[in-house]
Amino acid sequence: MTKKVRSVRPDTSFKETALALIQNRLSGVPVVDRQGRLVGIVSESDLLPREALDDDLLASAQAFFEGTFDWDSLFKNRKAVALTAGELMTTPVQTATPHTLLRQVAKRLSESGLRVLPVVDHGKVVGMVTRHDVLKVYCASDADTLCNVKDALEHRGYVPPRHCIDASVHEGIVTLGGTTIDPEGLRRALALVRAMDGVVAIRNLVRVDSSAG
Amino acid sequence: MTKKVRSVRPDTSFKETALALIQNRLSGVPVVDRQGRLVGIVSESDLLPREALDDDLLASAQAFFEGTFDWDSLFKNRKAVALTAGELMTTPVQTATPHTLLRQVAKRLSESGLRVLPVVDHGKVVGMVTRHDVLKVYCASDADTLCNVKDALEHRGYVPPRHCIDASVHEGIVTLGGTTIDPEGLRRALALVRAMDGVVAIRNLVRVDSSAG
Repeated sequence: MTKKVRSVRPDTSFKETALALIQNRLSGVPVVDRQGRLVGIVSESDLLPREALDDDLLASAQAFFEGTFDWDSLFKNRKAVALTAGELMTTPVQTATPHTLLRQVAKRLSESGLRVLPVVDHGKVVGMVTRHDVLKVYCASDADTLCNVKDALEHRGYVPPRHCIDASVHEGIVTLGGTTIDPEGLRRALALVRAMDGVVAIRNLVRVDSSAG
Repeated sequence: MTKKVRSVRPDTSFKETALALIQNRLSGVPVVDRQGRLVGIVSESDLLPREALDDDLLASAQAFFEGTFDWDSLFKNRKAVALTAGELMTTPVQTATPHTLLRQVAKRLSESGLRVLPVVDHGKVVGMVTRHDVLKVYCASDADTLCNVKDALEHRGYVPPRHCIDASVHEGIVTLGGTTIDPEGLRRALALVRAMDGVVAIRNLVRVDSSAG
């Protein structure tokens, strides 16, 4: 999450809104009212339609001149002619709270096609979380991931003492080997490891030895 | 357009592909074959599904353990289980050439929902153009835009000498005033100004004086 939040008002001009995105390298900026309440979000995709106006349509400036230019019917997207943040913004806004799990943030971003979610706490925007923030989990080194995996397997009691599960990590892929007598314990261990930050996949080579039970 | 192109191969691992995006702050990385030909593109949205895997699905690691885990039917998006750039990538790839007009780039980005287009010249990827690049046109100052508008009106012959059209610019909005005897010349002037970088909108207050003709 980025805590430095740049926001605009509904009456902020198109250009100032565009500059807020471009100069701060943001993919979205929240729109807040005078009380600081979130009312919408303007993202790059809200600004693009204006630049995408077709040359043929531009050529029909004659109609504009004659006062017969029917913007609404000509452009599917009214945002192409918006002049303020309030006209550009997407609403209602998908949001997260400071307590939303990273996985849920990823799900909301993925399903909505959005690149950024405002993080709202008690009605105020306290941060922004982006796709980039979510994917940063893959920056963990294999060595760090292995440490976390081993720590989880050995110290958190997910694998009973009599089990012997070993782990290695390469390119974020965790390979689990060894033997267990407890399929249920292994299931929990797999779920735990899979949910860890930076784990790309699990290769499960653990052998279930029922005879040892 | 960014000329420094970072690319990956179809067999580049998930993690290395993710790192290429994250560490270079890219929204998309082209996938090229051994001959350097573009075969696909991996963007942030291709990586998100894995992080968005539902906790309920994770809990079903039991099925994974039993070898009965039906990934394809369980996940709408197979990308959630992809292990290489070749499995993650989106194909066919929308592209631009070095000669594609900015407006056409904007249109392709807007309609496709993509954030980045590879720029291809003679089969090779020579650059990447992003939404950000397109929106940079709005960074032009009002003074610079006014200079360009006046230059165009006065020196490029779009407005015949006997016309008197003046211009002002505020927040990227160009206001044209004055008088003309030639609606067609005005139409061309409007189209010209509308197509200029950094122009948010045109307010046309030009009066057509047919009596002067």
